[in-house]
Amino acid sequence: MELLLLSNSRSPDGGYLTHASDLIRAAAGSRRTACFVPFAGVTFSWDEYTAKVRAVVEPLGIELTGAHAAGADALDAAELIIVGGGNTFQLLRECRRRGLLAALRAHVRGGKPYIGWSAGANLACPSICTTNDMPIVDPEGFEALGLVDFQINPHYTNALPPGHQGETRDQRLAEFLAANPDARVIGLPEGDWLRVDDAGIHLGGPFAARLFRHGEDARDVPAGGPVRI
Amino acid sequence: MELLLLSNSRSPDGGYLTHASDLIRAAAGSRRTACFVPFAGVTFSWDEYTAKVRAVVEPLGIELTGAHAAGADALDAAELIIVGGGNTFQLLRECRRRGLLAALRAHVRGGKPYIGWSAGANLACPSICTTNDMPIVDPEGFEALGLVDFQINPHYTNALPPGHQGETRDQRLAEFLAANPDARVIGLPEGDWLRVDDAGIHLGGPFAARLFRHGEDARDVPAGGPVRI
Repeated sequence: MELLLLSNSRSPDGGYLTHASDLIRAAAGSRRTACFVPFAGVTFSWDEYTAKVRAVVEPLGIELTGAHAAGADALDAAELIIVGGGNTFQLLRECRRRGLLAALRAHVRGGKPYIGWSAGANLACPSICTTNDMPIVDPEGFEALGLVDFQINPHYTNALPPGHQGETRDQRLAEFLAANPDARVIGLPEGDWLRVDDAGIHLGGPFAARLFRHGEDARDVPAGGPVRI
Repeated sequence: MELLLLSNSRSPDGGYLTHASDLIRAAAGSRRTACFVPFAGVTFSWDEYTAKVRAVVEPLGIELTGAHAAGADALDAAELIIVGGGNTFQLLRECRRRGLLAALRAHVRGGKPYIGWSAGANLACPSICTTNDMPIVDPEGFEALGLVDFQINPHYTNALPPGHQGETRDQRLAEFLAANPDARVIGLPEGDWLRVDDAGIHLGGPFAARLFRHGEDARDVPAGGPVRI
């Protein structure tokens, strides 16, 4: 299994997926066809979303098809699977309703690389319970693909807007772990990513990530090497 | 029907519910017994949570019973219903599993005042789809009490931590409205509240609130007077 799970799509320089371009090239290897899962997109069309991502991967020699048009057939035909960010609840709902969850799982376990950012990284987890998104639609169950056995919190930061009194991210994750004491979570700061394959998990990017377990102090792990979650 | 729906529990001076004390006194009127619904509390016990709120309302001459101990009987016996904040998903899940949703609805529609903050304000809405909380447990459906016919976004702010690239609150609410175009949302800044009764809706607190509808520009409404949502 080969997974590339990115915290977010926007590069520190403001470009769209520019920090991900070399990573996608490496994940693709010699593969030249990809299926894009655009269902996390809410305020723009899935055609528009697919075109936006196509503009990123076409220069890498990768041909992209949207899963909204061809469904499971597009998954069967493609050598790579790419799942975009946006709203995690809508992403899971659409995948569930279209019967794509089992197909996605089978293809990735069968060896097709999975590339996802933000909501697309959350979808690879056992559940979407560590998303930061607003629950704008009911996904009819929180269980997700379970391609990894830990949870990702994308866009990880513990900062709050000045003067704000809502829960910090660490408080939210402590609540998640209180309700789910056997789970493990990695908070992935913007700009970071995980590469997961049979050899293990590699943390990449400019920032340390943060590991959370119930009953233990959260701890930072440096980027640029293997990580045990 | 009488509702007092507060954005949050923490007063600008840092005190717990100090800004709500006079409001609770006014909502209670001559009533002297309240049932507290503590299920949004996650990282502390429901006994502890009930004791914390008891310390606020006891000086007002109100006797408080926790719904976790006595269940629907506590609702029957009380003249007031108070629903605390915390995690909205857990609050809804526990109310649903204990069969309290219909009872809460009936009591409030029958005239018992409902006082809620944060998650407790969200529970009064048609759904919990405009919560800011992390979906740490599956509430088995997002439908909530529907005591009002609009959605509240508590802890409303459109600010992001410096340098953060996640969605702003306004973007999240735009996504909610794209997926639910008939809904209306009021963003309640911290420190603000709504009083809802048969005469209408009154917005109180130090800050303007913000109204959101699909296909319209969001607009501010001043506090200290009636509001149409």
